[in-house]
Amino acid sequence: MSEILSDAGLDQIFRQARTYSAWRDGEISDVLLEAIYDLAKMGPTSANCSPMRVLFVRSKEAKERLKPALAPGNVDKTMAAPATAIIGIDLEFYEKLPQLFPHTDARSWFAGNDTLIAETAQRNGSLQGAYFIIAARALGLDCGPMSGFDREKVDAEFFAGTSWRSNFLCNLRHGDPEKLHERSPRLEFDEACQLL
Amino acid sequence: MSEILSDAGLDQIFRQARTYSAWRDGEISDVLLEAIYDLAKMGPTSANCSPMRVLFVRSKEAKERLKPALAPGNVDKTMAAPATAIIGIDLEFYEKLPQLFPHTDARSWFAGNDTLIAETAQRNGSLQGAYFIIAARALGLDCGPMSGFDREKVDAEFFAGTSWRSNFLCNLRHGDPEKLHERSPRLEFDEACQLL
Repeated sequence: MSEILSDAGLDQIFRQARTYSAWRDGEISDVLLEAIYDLAKMGPTSANCSPMRVLFVRSKEAKERLKPALAPGNVDKTMAAPATAIIGIDLEFYEKLPQLFPHTDARSWFAGNDTLIAETAQRNGSLQGAYFIIAARALGLDCGPMSGFDREKVDAEFFAGTSWRSNFLCNLRHGDPEKLHERSPRLEFDEACQLL
Repeated sequence: MSEILSDAGLDQIFRQARTYSAWRDGEISDVLLEAIYDLAKMGPTSANCSPMRVLFVRSKEAKERLKPALAPGNVDKTMAAPATAIIGIDLEFYEKLPQLFPHTDARSWFAGNDTLIAETAQRNGSLQGAYFIIAARALGLDCGPMSGFDREKVDAEFFAGTSWRSNFLCNLRHGDPEKLHERSPRLEFDEACQLL
């Protein structure tokens, strides 16, 4: 049976972790991006369907392609971040199910059912997006997740002709804690949970 | 700047953690359920919107109310688990934004825009559902998340007349590792990620 994670570990992935808007200069290596994914991919999804896809935007040229799709308040921070992950979903995720869930014909549960495909991709791709954020924090990185962008523009610019769609963005590497605002409140247990 | 979490910690929350179907007897206290929530609530959501709501089903009577909504393959495991969390979303989450995001009128971004409400609740409520899973694991618990149930039946039984809706279920406490099957494969980095 597992122990409770150390206080330092709980602080790092949940209690002291913050969403950063100001970023320190630097680069983020391929190896580190692969390490984030290699942790995040282990998190559970329904029938192991694993619909998350990630496009890592690091180069100046690629950042410029992203810029017109960003909400005004997200432009400077995203241009300054060493990397921006476009956390996406693959609407043809079910084509991988013979590989990912080989002991039954799970592909047939989805093929042709666009409503179930979209719902499953959105739910499980978002679960995986959260695993990605926690994995990055567990590796000592800071995250700046954002929903403020034009999804259609991002999809047209980066995913045209493919089955990938954008879900949210996440700036990465080391944030500047001196630029943080006070943390916003959270809902108390009794506001968000009930016991039966 | 943060260190990398210990190998034991990374194993516990990602690499060695598994989805359990067989559960050991026992009870799970209110205190422990609150501790899971108190970690999970700290994870980031868009504009701190925090749409996740959780109904913890522990009593025999409440489990029996849940039973008719479960997919056949999920009945025995859910009846055996010490607790089943109905991870839900609140479609009126934006009514809490004056409290959660007080420095601007974020409520007005959502009120009356049912498409944006549903999309935001689903994305961010699922992010929070993943934080919940990782938080439970970080506290030494095992999880058994499930999508195989009739959402309309669960909502009619537990959330009638409210703005809460079910998203997924998660069985909780200590799984039986002897009943685990071999782990399913994951997509390689090059199958799921691209670098620009």
